[in-house]
Amino acid sequence: MNQLPETMTAVILESYSGVTALHVEQRPLPKPGPHEVLVKVAASSINPSDLSFIEGMYGFRKPTPVVPGFEGAGTVVAGGASSGLMGRYLMGKRVACISQSEGDGVWAEYVATAVNYALPLDDSVSLEQGAMSVVNPLTAVALIEIAQNAGHKTIVNTAAAGALGQMINRLGQSAGIRVINIVRRDTQVELLQQRGADIVLNSSSPDFAQQLHDACHQHRARLAFDAIAGPMTLQLLEAMPIHGKVTVYGGLSLQPSMVSPAHTIFQSKSVDGFWLSKWLAKKNPLQSLLIWRRTQKLITTTLQSEIRARYSLQDAPKAVLAYQEQMTGGKVLIVPA
Amino acid sequence: MNQLPETMTAVILESYSGVTALHVEQRPLPKPGPHEVLVKVAASSINPSDLSFIEGMYGFRKPTPVVPGFEGAGTVVAGGASSGLMGRYLMGKRVACISQSEGDGVWAEYVATAVNYALPLDDSVSLEQGAMSVVNPLTAVALIEIAQNAGHKTIVNTAAAGALGQMINRLGQSAGIRVINIVRRDTQVELLQQRGADIVLNSSSPDFAQQLHDACHQHRARLAFDAIAGPMTLQLLEAMPIHGKVTVYGGLSLQPSMVSPAHTIFQSKSVDGFWLSKWLAKKNPLQSLLIWRRTQKLITTTLQSEIRARYSLQDAPKAVLAYQEQMTGGKVLIVPA
Repeated sequence: MNQLPETMTAVILESYSGVTALHVEQRPLPKPGPHEVLVKVAASSINPSDLSFIEGMYGFRKPTPVVPGFEGAGTVVAGGASSGLMGRYLMGKRVACISQSEGDGVWAEYVATAVNYALPLDDSVSLEQGAMSVVNPLTAVALIEIAQNAGHKTIVNTAAAGALGQMINRLGQSAGIRVINIVRRDTQVELLQQRGADIVLNSSSPDFAQQLHDACHQHRARLAFDAIAGPMTLQLLEAMPIHGKVTVYGGLSLQPSMVSPAHTIFQSKSVDGFWLSKWLAKKNPLQSLLIWRRTQKLITTTLQSEIRARYSLQDAPKAVLAYQEQMTGGKVLIVPA
Repeated sequence: MNQLPETMTAVILESYSGVTALHVEQRPLPKPGPHEVLVKVAASSINPSDLSFIEGMYGFRKPTPVVPGFEGAGTVVAGGASSGLMGRYLMGKRVACISQSEGDGVWAEYVATAVNYALPLDDSVSLEQGAMSVVNPLTAVALIEIAQNAGHKTIVNTAAAGALGQMINRLGQSAGIRVINIVRRDTQVELLQQRGADIVLNSSSPDFAQQLHDACHQHRARLAFDAIAGPMTLQLLEAMPIHGKVTVYGGLSLQPSMVSPAHTIFQSKSVDGFWLSKWLAKKNPLQSLLIWRRTQKLITTTLQSEIRARYSLQDAPKAVLAYQEQMTGGKVLIVPA
């Protein structure tokens, strides 16, 4: 380890009460543990899962105070004990890094993470794109794989104007799956149509329910990916033909899914969920590697993310607030100075 | 056909607006169509599905005016054209009969039904027990089969003080499945315990959520049969360990199931539904026959129903009202004079 500082700037979450519980302070540099590497962070992103985490509504909580941030990219600058061959291979490499279910996250100048959570970036991928190359792109890859494996020719895609929603649409189209996209505003309808989306429906339109019903029946859409929950789940189940299923992967409405017994009982409809961590955990190392390689090749095209704004670490709480207030129209990055 | 009258007394539903849309009138005797038999009804029962039907909330609607009533028992008195060998075999036989998805139901002196919807009664089963021997007993048989086939050692049973709830508990116990029963009143807790139920929880108790959580985790209950929906679905999902599933088979709360994204996403929990008609339609004739025989043998013991009151056809609307006001404590029969 040469020229590493003793402290770093980091975002700290004091308690699980959202963005107001975030502040920025100097912290000791993390020491990579066994099977870990230390990454100097070049950029980190903000995802809906980060908002859930700081509200205490994610799949797990970590002891506070804690550095949040699930996803970033940077350069490996040190390896911990037992980081072994892979640790040595990674030294100096540009990597995407995702934070572990224990310990500090990536909204900091440095992060220590497991060797298998530091994913080498393709030469074609910039560090900034790399900082958005795991959570959304792999989720899109996973959802389209799920749809394909179950033989679906058409899917329904909610929150379709968001970064992930647009990836799902593009990746679905390139895989030969018809995508029925749902957005909330007419401007988003136009945007997605300009970008080549086939079917785009506005859920604020007075005849949305009928339009969605007609589209789902015409194209026999029996699988909907729901990032919203609340009444949206009910609308999706209502619109699809019998045996339709809603797979919930986000709760943007902050409400429980509503599910009518008339749908579950008489129409054999069902609701389940998707969590990227679970999906990845079921893959063996070779499968993971192949998925990661394939995804990297698409990061500058099908799985590209737009950047709306960059904030310094010092201004990270403002970045989170800005993202929370508008979650479409490009990602917000946190970029250490 | 000898000595058959030209008209009969029947309950008529004028519109799908519930019990107030019921009245009693004289109607022409139904003529059994091809592959049908005519049954002289000795007794018919009232089930939650009948209440859903007259409210227009069942899986299908029939053109009105229509005779409601899904389930009864009586004696075969005539066969229609092409009713064939089975029609001749059934002549004079005591049968349970369920109404078809088209045409009039069993709340009448006579009903015409398909030969395969007229199920011969075992000698041990009275006509009154026969009139309660299909919907609830076969639902209990189906649910326990579903639990067994999926390898569940423990299940959760809602509305456990009702006729069906008690059957599920008894049949589950006899199949070696532990049943966590949920009722709404302390008197029902006592009743079920007196009758040998193992675990009985009162959902009105202030620490119900904790009790249910503890019971589900102690016994690894990952399957709940939900007759209630609304917030109950949420409580069931909340209480079960990861991978827990709620199978909804009724909507007694008259509310959509509430399903938290935290459960579907992070805990791999899911919600589906059960409909007896669908389950039966998947069985081949031999399977159906074996299931029916096995069920009949249990009608006077494990799958017995209590009778709380009998009403004449003339008083059928009062019978429906009485059942609607209190759905536990024994079945309400409609008995033609």
